[in-house]
Amino acid sequence: MDKILRVNMTDLSTKIETVPAAWAGLGGRGLTSTIVAAEVPPTCHALGASNKLVFAPGLLTGTAAANSGRLSAGAKSPLTGTIKESNAGGTAAQMLARLGIKALIIEGIPTEDKWYSLHVNKDGVSVQEETELIGQKNFAVIEALEARLGKKTGILTIGPVGELKMTAANISVKDPDSKIRSHGRGGLGAVMGSKKIKFISIDDQGAPGVKIADPEKFKVAARTFAKALLDHPVSGEGLPTYGTNVLVNILNEAGGLPTQNFKVGQFAGADKISGETMNETITARGGKVRHGCHAGCIIQCSQVYNDKDGKYVTSGFEYETIWGLGADCCIDNLDDIALADSIMDDIGIDSIETAVMFGVAMEAGILNWGDSKEMLRILSEEIGKGTPLGRIMGGGAGSLGKAYGVTRVPVVKNQGIPAYDPRSVKGIGITYATSTMGADHTAGYTIATNILNVGGYVDPLKKEGQVELSRNLQIATAAVDSTGMCIFVAFPALDIPECLPALIDMLNARFGINLNGDDVVNLGKHILKVEHQFNIDAGFSNIHDRLPEFFSTETVAPHDAIWDFSGAEIDEFWNF
Amino acid sequence: MDKILRVNMTDLSTKIETVPAAWAGLGGRGLTSTIVAAEVPPTCHALGASNKLVFAPGLLTGTAAANSGRLSAGAKSPLTGTIKESNAGGTAAQMLARLGIKALIIEGIPTEDKWYSLHVNKDGVSVQEETELIGQKNFAVIEALEARLGKKTGILTIGPVGELKMTAANISVKDPDSKIRSHGRGGLGAVMGSKKIKFISIDDQGAPGVKIADPEKFKVAARTFAKALLDHPVSGEGLPTYGTNVLVNILNEAGGLPTQNFKVGQFAGADKISGETMNETITARGGKVRHGCHAGCIIQCSQVYNDKDGKYVTSGFEYETIWGLGADCCIDNLDDIALADSIMDDIGIDSIETAVMFGVAMEAGILNWGDSKEMLRILSEEIGKGTPLGRIMGGGAGSLGKAYGVTRVPVVKNQGIPAYDPRSVKGIGITYATSTMGADHTAGYTIATNILNVGGYVDPLKKEGQVELSRNLQIATAAVDSTGMCIFVAFPALDIPECLPALIDMLNARFGINLNGDDVVNLGKHILKVEHQFNIDAGFSNIHDRLPEFFSTETVAPHDAIWDFSGAEIDEFWNF
Repeated sequence: MDKILRVNMTDLSTKIETVPAAWAGLGGRGLTSTIVAAEVPPTCHALGASNKLVFAPGLLTGTAAANSGRLSAGAKSPLTGTIKESNAGGTAAQMLARLGIKALIIEGIPTEDKWYSLHVNKDGVSVQEETELIGQKNFAVIEALEARLGKKTGILTIGPVGELKMTAANISVKDPDSKIRSHGRGGLGAVMGSKKIKFISIDDQGAPGVKIADPEKFKVAARTFAKALLDHPVSGEGLPTYGTNVLVNILNEAGGLPTQNFKVGQFAGADKISGETMNETITARGGKVRHGCHAGCIIQCSQVYNDKDGKYVTSGFEYETIWGLGADCCIDNLDDIALADSIMDDIGIDSIETAVMFGVAMEAGILNWGDSKEMLRILSEEIGKGTPLGRIMGGGAGSLGKAYGVTRVPVVKNQGIPAYDPRSVKGIGITYATSTMGADHTAGYTIATNILNVGGYVDPLKKEGQVELSRNLQIATAAVDSTGMCIFVAFPALDIPECLPALIDMLNARFGINLNGDDVVNLGKHILKVEHQFNIDAGFSNIHDRLPEFFSTETVAPHDAIWDFSGAEIDEFWNF
Repeated sequence: MDKILRVNMTDLSTKIETVPAAWAGLGGRGLTSTIVAAEVPPTCHALGASNKLVFAPGLLTGTAAANSGRLSAGAKSPLTGTIKESNAGGTAAQMLARLGIKALIIEGIPTEDKWYSLHVNKDGVSVQEETELIGQKNFAVIEALEARLGKKTGILTIGPVGELKMTAANISVKDPDSKIRSHGRGGLGAVMGSKKIKFISIDDQGAPGVKIADPEKFKVAARTFAKALLDHPVSGEGLPTYGTNVLVNILNEAGGLPTQNFKVGQFAGADKISGETMNETITARGGKVRHGCHAGCIIQCSQVYNDKDGKYVTSGFEYETIWGLGADCCIDNLDDIALADSIMDDIGIDSIETAVMFGVAMEAGILNWGDSKEMLRILSEEIGKGTPLGRIMGGGAGSLGKAYGVTRVPVVKNQGIPAYDPRSVKGIGITYATSTMGADHTAGYTIATNILNVGGYVDPLKKEGQVELSRNLQIATAAVDSTGMCIFVAFPALDIPECLPALIDMLNARFGINLNGDDVVNLGKHILKVEHQFNIDAGFSNIHDRLPEFFSTETVAPHDAIWDFSGAEIDEFWNF
């Protein structure tokens, strides 16, 4: 029987609850957002006792479905003040799913100034005081816990940035190679830090596993689904070969690669940090070009990036990080960016927020454009140690902009705008503006259709069709984020006719139900509306569904593109 | 003929404009808020080119009316994101009024990275590049400008905090003794800094002066009005004798003196920082107990506070500053608080915001409760020099709270809550919650009726009548803030029947018009509605008209009072 685990950090009690009927059909983002909306007062302080941190594996997580191993984390975000869902790979989701845990809900704040850890196993969850690992960075935590609890232990942990409750703190998830995947965006690591939880360990020995209502039907659908993933040129070829970093050259070519804190759309050093260069470098140094973030991933967009001596530096080295520390900061040294990526994993901070922040910091004159050595020093010595400058920076791009009086601050709802200029790729601008999460490219990845010709084509430089495109993708993404699927299944789902029906068939076979395509769309709509209502109750209005002023006053080369959507045009998004 | 001066800092051009008919009947806050609402896009970046900084003397400023010499400054606030009016004494308002200047409007941002000064005289306004005084503190600026331009020069200036665009920066106004009065709240100094204006000098030689339509009627009314001010026990006796600091003992007695970052309502060291102690100290050291912030002030709530050696330390040493650095930070050393007041004037930062911030900083453990020496060091060496810690602190209480993950942060709309606990003085809580300015005690000073028995009595510990009280006072204050009158005229106006009619008679005699009491009330309502609409268009809703969560979850001794207004009850405020 599936269950909900609930931990109250105020009195350090734990409970095992049955799954309410209303939550039974939900998983992943659909479940975390539903729980947060139901149980967290929208106006509460995100780092206070009223906020709750919720983890939920997806509906298909723990099954043999390809790429279904992602974990959703949800809470009110201390960065944006909105509801927040952030999902990640790693081993935790599948372990929780096999244990029959629909969700882990953590509430309250300890009354004593002590640190704790949570331990999840087949019998439930327990709270223990933790002293040894407090102040430790993530890789050391994982190493120590594997020694303490065994190599197979699942681990969710926060680094010093989360302990210090900086609002760009992430939650790290151990991956199959004992490296790190991140619930990156929205400062959920600070929420975990506010609850004084350094780590959560998961032991799935004796787990009942996931029951499939119709195993034969599931098997057939899973095979069709996996084939679609492998057949599509993006998920089957581009991503496995170059990782997400395949996008540097593509966006640079399209003039949508934000450079020097969103001043221009092309970067002279693009080739030096591109996916192609990365592939050659990895190959030459004996790294791995393909690598999965969780068991069962067949896209394998991750990689193992080694240094010149062939020594491991980082994995999960994503386009958005490379763009942000690269083009946006005018750094063309891929090795330094890789090192920065590793440090960010280790101290536990969102690499997108931090990269956008560094662009603003360079604009403020705190460090020079392109100064990767100073960036590395700041990551380790300032942010990692929580100095005052580190705390400003650990609060993200908006925090830095406020402290230094910068007017060109690319954030929506205080969350840094990622890797795609909204003036020259207008669809993604609608997603940034309207997403319930603050600026978030994954919420409705219009790059697919604006740039990659997936799911048709909508001219990125024109306004026509962008609101509808973003709306359709945001609805679909909210549903996909509930399945535990990686967002990249959207590529085949948009182009290969058998893919989406196969995904729905897997859901039906798993639960013995009869969803159709409309049901999935309605689920997506419902999730967005639940999240949107939370935000409205937290004080957000359509006025906050806007891009920063400078996108409407400064054109961006090479297309001299400008953000020219009226408020009323943007607000059309919510007409569904 | 009255005129509007307009300066465009983008092209460094200036204009003299006639006063539009719609603005002719407006002055002070009524005029600055009307201009800001008409000309500033509510969603603009407050430190960007679209914001405007507006100065306007009141309707009676420059006349012989007692206590009418205050200057309003308005803009979109970089601290709160709301519309902002902040008024101050000093010599500038009367000089502008005598020059026939209804308002000085400063727009745009320089294209070059240079600093400037503005010079206002009978011929208009001019822009000059400034190099010598950049980086200088306010007292040095005043001294240098008096040497450069003559002792009688009127001066508005920003210190290093304003130059660095920290959002608690104020604008300093030279007073009759070449000391400093401040447009304190809301970070207007950062707006001036964003426009790269270090100072504004005013030369009123050859000023036409203020014309009175009916001099005889004016004289009679002015005499009645002045008598009322002198006859009322608060404005005629309490304030002149003890300054605003008369309130320390009164609020301590009432259990409404927020202590240790709003943990309790009484301070063990209250007597050491009280108005009575201050009076004795000033007298013993040869200072001045009574002192006016502008010519024609007959209340004289300011003072000259000397050190042990009889050397000048500060003036305009207000209750809110003394409460904040005193009780709220558990500091009982009045000399150190006086020194801090002087440093804050010198570096140009709002003493209320900074005091509230220090309470939060002590809660965060950055410095110890009661450590006045470290506070003095931080003011000079961190905030005054713009170190990273200084920038966090110079952003006010909200900024500090965010950077250090503090949940007990007493702000509304990101502006620090002053000197009166809203749980034990509930009327002022309604003002904090609903004021268009963010938490601001002067916007509707219910302490008068909750604590001082002025204008009747409304029990401060009960909910009944507080919304109506705050509403009536906020409406009246908006009107009074338009006359150039000091807020303390409200005491006699509430209690002495002849006072308010005399004030209205002065307005009628000045302009040859026929306002009655209803007109004045309607003016106040109109101003509040204009400001409120700006805030709504900037993204604020009733959800932002709320006090921080902890006031509703923590009781405050000695009354175990709690903030127990529902949202709907607070929202009744706007029913007018």
